[in-house]
Amino acid sequence: MVTKKAAAKSTQGKARNGSNVLIVGSVALDNVRTPFGEHNEVLGGSCAYASTSASYFCPTSIVAVVGGDFPKPHLKFFADKKIDTTGLQVVPGGKTFRWRGYYEYDMGQAHTLETRLNVFADFQPVIPENLRRSQFVLLGNINPELQLEVLKQIRGPKLALVDTMNYWIEGKQEELLKVLKKCDIVLLNDAEARQLCDTTNLQKAARRLLKLGLSRVIIKKGEHGCLMFSGKDYFTAPAFPLEFIKDPTGAGDTFAGGFIGYLAGAASLSDTTFRKAVMVGTAMASFTVEEFSLKRIGNLKPQEIVARVNQLRKQTDFGTITVK
Amino acid sequence: MVTKKAAAKSTQGKARNGSNVLIVGSVALDNVRTPFGEHNEVLGGSCAYASTSASYFCPTSIVAVVGGDFPKPHLKFFADKKIDTTGLQVVPGGKTFRWRGYYEYDMGQAHTLETRLNVFADFQPVIPENLRRSQFVLLGNINPELQLEVLKQIRGPKLALVDTMNYWIEGKQEELLKVLKKCDIVLLNDAEARQLCDTTNLQKAARRLLKLGLSRVIIKKGEHGCLMFSGKDYFTAPAFPLEFIKDPTGAGDTFAGGFIGYLAGAASLSDTTFRKAVMVGTAMASFTVEEFSLKRIGNLKPQEIVARVNQLRKQTDFGTITVK
Repeated sequence: MVTKKAAAKSTQGKARNGSNVLIVGSVALDNVRTPFGEHNEVLGGSCAYASTSASYFCPTSIVAVVGGDFPKPHLKFFADKKIDTTGLQVVPGGKTFRWRGYYEYDMGQAHTLETRLNVFADFQPVIPENLRRSQFVLLGNINPELQLEVLKQIRGPKLALVDTMNYWIEGKQEELLKVLKKCDIVLLNDAEARQLCDTTNLQKAARRLLKLGLSRVIIKKGEHGCLMFSGKDYFTAPAFPLEFIKDPTGAGDTFAGGFIGYLAGAASLSDTTFRKAVMVGTAMASFTVEEFSLKRIGNLKPQEIVARVNQLRKQTDFGTITVK
Repeated sequence: MVTKKAAAKSTQGKARNGSNVLIVGSVALDNVRTPFGEHNEVLGGSCAYASTSASYFCPTSIVAVVGGDFPKPHLKFFADKKIDTTGLQVVPGGKTFRWRGYYEYDMGQAHTLETRLNVFADFQPVIPENLRRSQFVLLGNINPELQLEVLKQIRGPKLALVDTMNYWIEGKQEELLKVLKKCDIVLLNDAEARQLCDTTNLQKAARRLLKLGLSRVIIKKGEHGCLMFSGKDYFTAPAFPLEFIKDPTGAGDTFAGGFIGYLAGAASLSDTTFRKAVMVGTAMASFTVEEFSLKRIGNLKPQEIVARVNQLRKQTDFGTITVK
């Protein structure tokens, strides 16, 4: 495997407009209840949300697993979004991963009622040969052991982004740290950053994460937006204001997909490109939560995305001051 | 009393550069312990923090009360900052308001050990005749009954800003609502906004507050920055990143003072002016917490303030995007 640093060097300044992105994660059938309704057997999973989000910006390929019971319309959905499903394993006779949960009125936290891993329990990611040189890789929020397995198979990506959650910080911290040391950017929420780094101060937490060798750290804060840290750049992104959230499921995955998709589709990777990518991820996530499943995020017009990013910019603009 | 609306009309577009600001609140002697030290009998109180902060931007007058025991050096401090203390009542033989409290390592919440109101218990604000036409008035975080008393004495301010806290929302909600209906802008934190408006959604909370007749609502979110709402403008302000907070006492009051001070000193009051004022308040508060009491906020150079506001701007800038 080509090391991360050597790869970064070899491709430096040579990013092509329209690199593809490879996304590894879960594809699930969700049963979700919120104060705004209940939807059963709808398409979900980190890989589904992230790939749909990324597909607006660059060619997108997924590596995941489903059972023979996976509904054909969902496969058609991926095809319609031009998402490459060569790496989607279908286990005949197997059952697709299912999650059942609900949200209270504040929508702040998902309450899991049932998780049936089904075919996902034995998932061994296999990256198709033609995708092993993917320049942009998103390791969706899954078991760090599987994330490590993916990293073994890919060859010198320009940018590896890893998403994670408290479940892995608590249960697989050693493996997770191994993943972080091999990746470029980590995405986690504020509570997770505080937990993983054992400090209440997010600035300190980010410094500690950067010391692992990551080039950037993105800390998501839900309704408070997110923070992006690198050694020299610091970016504070606002959240998009939403009065009505129908279903928060998949917001984080959508952010991750929009973020890396925008980067893969960009002509170069400057600090400003990364900042724009954060705002794109923010905008994409804001669409996801407006509807159940992928109903909204699956049907966006490019100008809707641009308008929302423009609105986010308008929220933060202010001029210069003088003090005598 | 000239009504708020009539006053706003009569002065519309006529703000003079360098209006004065009148600040009513508490002046206290604080006994504070944080993980970074313990300081006793130091200058504190909403009026002390707010007026010091405002004094960098406009002529500042205070209305408050202290006892005969109030240390002379603190009076000299106000004089050095050119803060007009004509309205500072000194009760000979009385004792100054004292607060004793501490903060845990996370600095998120003040733990009160002792509150001795002393002369503040009988405080009846009296606005000196020459200050009753002040155009910019800050009703510091005190009993809403006293805030109402102040409002009775002032004549058609251009802008009345009211600061409050959970204590008054719980104990004096009716009086507080009366104050809000007579003011232009309210300043409160996110938990307080949710509590007062009975909703977890801050967007909804702000809409409800605006319906009381306020022209702007500012919701402070601590380390997450703050939000400013008006009928047509929405502004999301980042917090200044701080790794070391020595003492968070007075941060909110400092914000309020910097905010209204900047407005009073500005040539006109556009949406952009209000946005700049929020960033000035943010910058000023970030100085306050770097030291105990008014040690840092009392000794700032104008260029330090400008530099911090510039840094805040750099934190949020991003360009435009295109999506094909």
